[in-house]
Amino acid sequence: MKTSIIAVGTELLFGQTVNTNASYLSENLNLMGFDVMYHFVVGDNPNRLREKLADAFKDTDLVLLTGGLGPTQDDLTKEIVAEYMGADLYRDEKVVEDLKAFFEKRGGHMADNNLKQAYLPVGCTPLYNASGTAPGFALEKNGKIAICFPGPPRELKWLFENGGRQYLEQFMEKKMYYRVIRTIGIGESDLETLLMPLIDGQTDPTIATYAKEGECTLRVASQRDTLEEARSATEDMIARIDDLAGKYIYSYDDEELDEVVVRLLREKHLTITAAESCTGGMFASAITNVAGASDILKASFVTYSIEAKHKLVGVPYEIIDSYGVVSPETAEAMAAGAMSSFGADIGISVTGFAGPDADPGHNAGEAYIGYAYKDRSGYVPVNTSRNIRNWNRNYFKLRMLRTVYQILKGEL
Amino acid sequence: MKTSIIAVGTELLFGQTVNTNASYLSENLNLMGFDVMYHFVVGDNPNRLREKLADAFKDTDLVLLTGGLGPTQDDLTKEIVAEYMGADLYRDEKVVEDLKAFFEKRGGHMADNNLKQAYLPVGCTPLYNASGTAPGFALEKNGKIAICFPGPPRELKWLFENGGRQYLEQFMEKKMYYRVIRTIGIGESDLETLLMPLIDGQTDPTIATYAKEGECTLRVASQRDTLEEARSATEDMIARIDDLAGKYIYSYDDEELDEVVVRLLREKHLTITAAESCTGGMFASAITNVAGASDILKASFVTYSIEAKHKLVGVPYEIIDSYGVVSPETAEAMAAGAMSSFGADIGISVTGFAGPDADPGHNAGEAYIGYAYKDRSGYVPVNTSRNIRNWNRNYFKLRMLRTVYQILKGEL
Repeated sequence: MKTSIIAVGTELLFGQTVNTNASYLSENLNLMGFDVMYHFVVGDNPNRLREKLADAFKDTDLVLLTGGLGPTQDDLTKEIVAEYMGADLYRDEKVVEDLKAFFEKRGGHMADNNLKQAYLPVGCTPLYNASGTAPGFALEKNGKIAICFPGPPRELKWLFENGGRQYLEQFMEKKMYYRVIRTIGIGESDLETLLMPLIDGQTDPTIATYAKEGECTLRVASQRDTLEEARSATEDMIARIDDLAGKYIYSYDDEELDEVVVRLLREKHLTITAAESCTGGMFASAITNVAGASDILKASFVTYSIEAKHKLVGVPYEIIDSYGVVSPETAEAMAAGAMSSFGADIGISVTGFAGPDADPGHNAGEAYIGYAYKDRSGYVPVNTSRNIRNWNRNYFKLRMLRTVYQILKGEL
Repeated sequence: MKTSIIAVGTELLFGQTVNTNASYLSENLNLMGFDVMYHFVVGDNPNRLREKLADAFKDTDLVLLTGGLGPTQDDLTKEIVAEYMGADLYRDEKVVEDLKAFFEKRGGHMADNNLKQAYLPVGCTPLYNASGTAPGFALEKNGKIAICFPGPPRELKWLFENGGRQYLEQFMEKKMYYRVIRTIGIGESDLETLLMPLIDGQTDPTIATYAKEGECTLRVASQRDTLEEARSATEDMIARIDDLAGKYIYSYDDEELDEVVVRLLREKHLTITAAESCTGGMFASAITNVAGASDILKASFVTYSIEAKHKLVGVPYEIIDSYGVVSPETAEAMAAGAMSSFGADIGISVTGFAGPDADPGHNAGEAYIGYAYKDRSGYVPVNTSRNIRNWNRNYFKLRMLRTVYQILKGEL
């Protein structure tokens, strides 16, 4: 079904807000088999919205709108859509009750203008909103469908997942199943080349790759007559991907690498301590961003200077003098020292040049990840060939996480 | 001048790419006094682009287009715009030379299809692109103006700043000057209330507030007949803002708080060491993200557990037992220990509940920032009243940075 998305809000035209709602809806609609042909952005202006709504319905049968459903005078999306579709408004008593409960729970008084949100077009399918005050709705007339969602991205997402998606499923000819696979350690074009035998000429399941800073994500999606067929086709394809690229995969369920690492460490009852040079705390920060990290990370070190590498994690000055501060030997000594200094099960370290500067004979982007676990220790060399400080730091952190992942999987 | 922005690219309609180009252009165009009325997104499809170009020119006189200028068959923006404006294409020899130089520099062979990029509409103002291979251009006919930019955000920004902006200045009736002020420690609505005497009824300079996670940014902009007048009006207004809200301002030049703190520490030749509990290394990571941080941060500690607080930065167990691990006393002892354990000039610490859990009698969002500097020490209580782990952690980090800023300014 041909589809347009109209975002309503002057803040978008001022450039204060980026239209992430259109991307979010587009991604989901495409996955469901809808053909998104246009995005429009229009300010809080009734005439211009009326005009763009007509433009959108001229070429497409399904129009999703975001924004302009709130309680203020500016909020006109519902009124314009109802008028365009020739529907009156009625007062929806469930919304009135929801609004009262919402304000009571917060111990506040409900200003009268909030009741504006309780009016919906006659004949619509209400999309009740438990994540905010403004409900959405879907309205169909003569084969044309308008669906209105609130503008705040959190509310839009909630309402799409809890009403919007279910409403749209009736227009899907097939059932859809998909999974998102996360990889690290291989670039997007290399991954595509590796999977070319599966991607080439493949119509269902589809395999889409997305590059993200230092990582690459794969989405495997199938649309079939039944959900079971779609699921089975997806799982078969994932098994074939696993055969070709399994060693780069760290999640089959769209988890972040830090979440996977924390989960595995907790499952194995292992603790970890890091000694970070150029990442300056990013590894420890990533680990502790996951709730429950206190079980596995008790302490960690930022050893930015040579003195700190010696004093805090006991790297002998002779190693630094002999091999250099950015070297496999220093990285290994840092990891071993991080492990023993606090009695952790695993020690992990990084020493490198994030940029813009590097010592003579080295380049920005060169780093060594050191690790120590029980009687094993070693290092992983990294060289991004880039001189972008933030990018390198983030990539080094990801490689530290991946190194821990590989230890936990018995690959190192 | 009424303006539309058309982004061309199927990846936008798939939701793989967010249309940040439209926000970037909108923000800049609004600041220059152009009235952005619509955004459109259309795929790499000649008929649909032709139609939306006509729609845009129906209501607006200036249309900026992004994307579709590359060397492939898909890239059709230039051809459609030239056709719509009734212009033929000519081969621009400067672009040919630029392309040859571009590929020579990279030691690669130039595929023939790259020459497609050297053709531009007759009568256009070329926008030569030193940041990539595809040039942009501006084309005016009968009072209608189309300006085409490449799609990659980095190239778009470069070309807007190095050609696009200068071309557009001829249509500005006035000269514009603006500055961006950064504040922390006050919410957006409180800041607006504080500045209401200046904002209310003010037409030039304008004051716009933007909330960002835990921070608030102010943009003061003036448009006058001469640049000097605009500059002077802006500076006068900034002085008045300073009188009312000076204590919340940390940058008058749109700098990040971590950059300001690193700059001030380097200017004063001071070193700093942190002891971080719930932020888990975010403070050290923010400081070391700024190039040159090695002068001021030698080492730092992530003291996540009670044991780490004792062993690494010497917090007496009696303090933790008497006052609790999340308390002003523990925060101060952590800061003093961080300072003395590595001989830094300043010690900074945080202990708190990021969420989702908190000890009985406490709530997520409660934290204490400790500091120690020479013979001074103290703490700053923080309570966000939110239970959003990532938000709290980031806010605690900002408050640590602000505390250091206040020490350096003699306010603590």
